Amino acid sequence: MTTQQLHEQILQKKSFLCVGLDPDLTKIPPHLLETEDPIFEFNKAIIDATHDLAVGYKPNTAFFEAYGIKGWISLQKTINYINENFPEIFTIADAKRGDIGNTSSMYAKAFFEDLNFDSVTVAPYMGKDSVEPFLAFENKHTIMLALTSNEGAFDFQTLNVNGKELYKQVLETSKTWKNSHNLMYVVGATKAEYFADIRKIVPDSFLLVPGIGAQGGSLSEVCKYGMNDKVGLLVNSARAIIYASKGTDFAEKAREEALSVQKEMEEIINSKFQV
Amino acid sequence: MTTQQLHEQILQKKSFLCVGLDPDLTKIPPHLLETEDPIFEFNKAIIDATHDLAVGYKPNTAFFEAYGIKGWISLQKTINYINENFPEIFTIADAKRGDIGNTSSMYAKAFFEDLNFDSVTVAPYMGKDSVEPFLAFENKHTIMLALTSNEGAFDFQTLNVNGKELYKQVLETSKTWKNSHNLMYVVGATKAEYFADIRKIVPDSFLLVPGIGAQGGSLSEVCKYGMNDKVGLLVNSARAIIYASKGTDFAEKAREEALSVQKEMEEIINSKFQV
Repeated sequence: MTTQQLHEQILQKKSFLCVGLDPDLTKIPPHLLETEDPIFEFNKAIIDATHDLAVGYKPNTAFFEAYGIKGWISLQKTINYINENFPEIFTIADAKRGDIGNTSSMYAKAFFEDLNFDSVTVAPYMGKDSVEPFLAFENKHTIMLALTSNEGAFDFQTLNVNGKELYKQVLETSKTWKNSHNLMYVVGATKAEYFADIRKIVPDSFLLVPGIGAQGGSLSEVCKYGMNDKVGLLVNSARAIIYASKGTDFAEKAREEALSVQKEMEEIINSKFQV
Repeated sequence: MTTQQLHEQILQKKSFLCVGLDPDLTKIPPHLLETEDPIFEFNKAIIDATHDLAVGYKPNTAFFEAYGIKGWISLQKTINYINENFPEIFTIADAKRGDIGNTSSMYAKAFFEDLNFDSVTVAPYMGKDSVEPFLAFENKHTIMLALTSNEGAFDFQTLNVNGKELYKQVLETSKTWKNSHNLMYVVGATKAEYFADIRKIVPDSFLLVPGIGAQGGSLSEVCKYGMNDKVGLLVNSARAIIYASKGTDFAEKAREEALSVQKEMEEIINSKFQV
């Protein structure tokens, strides 16, 4: 998928919502545990109930790997289900990978070719040759951690290097890498006041923004400082939507939560772009 | 496994060699491709041929994930094979994971509980709450990236923060985390001159050292600066051992390469500890 196609989908749906798929067998509705593949059934129901309100889905690989081979099968079924039924949807493997060059090539093959995701999240610590193998895939997107939504972001990401915070250096350096036009960045919603500075460095890039909902970030603040003239944001919500109810009405309740976020996004898009 | 047990194995085998299992279908001997699970058969043959010379095996998860569900099955068979037949071996899931707390907990569950590895590699960028969920597992080991063996290490890891390089800050900060006694660190063999400084910060920790062999690092230099009075090193070699031959003699040739490294290690241990 191209960023232009993603942009068009955002305008059409009046939404830049990404739904995080973090399926946890201890949290999903108990009646699903009787099915053959509870994780896939859970994801499928959430996707069916929200696909017209969201532009992206972000399966978090940890929540599949924790169940071993069965989990990996659920992950494959989930991505296949989205690609076959909702090809307009932008898919994100939230995997936070990154290793030396020949290893990163194998991860890129895993997520872009074998599973056929549109994008994958990566960590920057190992530098250029750990990220460029992902960037080599055209019309696939590499979403690099910049400033994350968690408390630990302050341990290293905001340390001062060369007179600026590390995450700013990470953003600047990454722009010099080969095929850097295929980069997007993770910036946490819990740090909305940082978005203005980030936009000075990467004005045109899409930002994947976790931290709305359970983590407490504010959508309006994020948009105020982070939105660009192509919207340029994918705001993720996971727990607040997918675990809105533990009953048989979980998909319906998930839709209500997603609809509430989408309505807020529609207002913001309408006011900002005067559609 | 405790670090004491690992130390005893090192003294007994006169080896601190870890064999990296990076199985690539384009590189393994062609005659194996006719078997039902070429990746597992390859790993099994390498393990059978080298287990008395090595103290650890380090499957690199990328090389399994690249083959999807089949790859994950091969990974599970490989770790089960080691645990069932060679329980003295220290096992490392080279996965470079790390995410917000509840997600890192799922990764820890995946590698420590579901797959039953002794250790897993993690990336530090997301800070304390991304690593502590791994550290909560007693007698399991969390091997955090400090200074990696690749060229990209110089992009961020060696930047100056607070008057010291970032990787030193990472080491220092990590010592303050809960259960930090369960930490080990990745330090690349290609940067042997850095080991003396690193040992000032983490004198007692085990260091996992990639970069010997195909990447060009020197074993004697690493030992000169990096060894502590409990040895404290796990030196990894992957490609130079596992791809020593592409013929039907690949396991035999792998053994020859491993033996050559082990002999060098034996000399170093004997001279350093005057056994």
